[in-house]
Amino acid sequence: MKILLIGASGTIGKGVAAELGARHDIITAGRSSGDVQIDIRDPASIRAAYEKVGAVDAVVSTAGKVHFGDFAEMDEEKYRIGINDKLMGQVNLVLIGRDYVADRASFTLTTGILTKDPIRYGSSASMVNGAVEAFVRAAATEMPAGLRINAVSPGVIAEAMEGYAPFFRGHDPVPAAKAALGYAKSVEGLQTGQVFEIF
Amino acid sequence: MKILLIGASGTIGKGVAAELGARHDIITAGRSSGDVQIDIRDPASIRAAYEKVGAVDAVVSTAGKVHFGDFAEMDEEKYRIGINDKLMGQVNLVLIGRDYVADRASFTLTTGILTKDPIRYGSSASMVNGAVEAFVRAAATEMPAGLRINAVSPGVIAEAMEGYAPFFRGHDPVPAAKAALGYAKSVEGLQTGQVFEIF
Repeated sequence: MKILLIGASGTIGKGVAAELGARHDIITAGRSSGDVQIDIRDPASIRAAYEKVGAVDAVVSTAGKVHFGDFAEMDEEKYRIGINDKLMGQVNLVLIGRDYVADRASFTLTTGILTKDPIRYGSSASMVNGAVEAFVRAAATEMPAGLRINAVSPGVIAEAMEGYAPFFRGHDPVPAAKAALGYAKSVEGLQTGQVFEIF
Repeated sequence: MKILLIGASGTIGKGVAAELGARHDIITAGRSSGDVQIDIRDPASIRAAYEKVGAVDAVVSTAGKVHFGDFAEMDEEKYRIGINDKLMGQVNLVLIGRDYVADRASFTLTTGILTKDPIRYGSSASMVNGAVEAFVRAAATEMPAGLRINAVSPGVIAEAMEGYAPFFRGHDPVPAAKAALGYAKSVEGLQTGQVFEIF
């Protein structure tokens, strides 16, 4: 398969590239690195990348930022960061990608454990993850014939614990290689409308 | 209790006003009707309303629009309608309301069954509901001491079935008076961070 991996230089992205790269052709994408540049906040940038790479068999997003901050200081503007990036950035990868991907292609988006298991400073992450997961379940039912869509919801990633540990006390870290299995299940399996929880 | 009810003229809002109005003082709010006018898309309008009504013991939102449409024709702009209205409108009722409500006040937002049980044309409704529910679970943990927040997720409302029936085949309609019980549980009980599903 020809797989477009957005967020390839990130911790999860590297794990996905290692897992899927063993069996498939990976086109790496990132904001400023990779085979092709995509800023998911910018629909024109997404469209230009799809034009460049041509029909792919799978689109995998491990990209998407949100603002982490004390709820007392969270305002609309700070929630909009995640809405514009991890939420609508990933949704636009699907909306725009529908016109470019190969028959029977799949989209795999990334959410995270905070949908269900909130942490201090994480209200925006939780909101955005919940939005993406419900979008995936609904969009799967209305997708053009043959196209699939899933999300992977990993726990806190072991390789990122050096910085994240103080915020994720009590969480059981998931190695990126284990999180990557969720993406393999989505891309290489046949399920659609699922949230694969790896935690 | 003194309760600010936004969306009071809607089908669910009328049910909530009947249920809670029997025991409490209801201040009704709507875009163009009610005791006070609030356009939840406009933070200035929300702030002005809170200034006008003073400290309330409960804020109940049964307001929030989304765009219903065929997924094939859904684009970013159409998803932004629900993000700006039912999602960030309700979130802003909380973010701004924190500064105005009484000690031990509660916020109760509205989602809906489509979070879990999607229908044709409903991908934006599902997305927004999922976002609000995850926000409620997370925000509850970081709320200022004593303040509570919950959501009520009703099924399709019986009184609205005349227009909605073709889109909700197989759904078991919920009378507005039954949905209203979820709001009573949130406002008059002690739970926080909950999504009360009435379906």
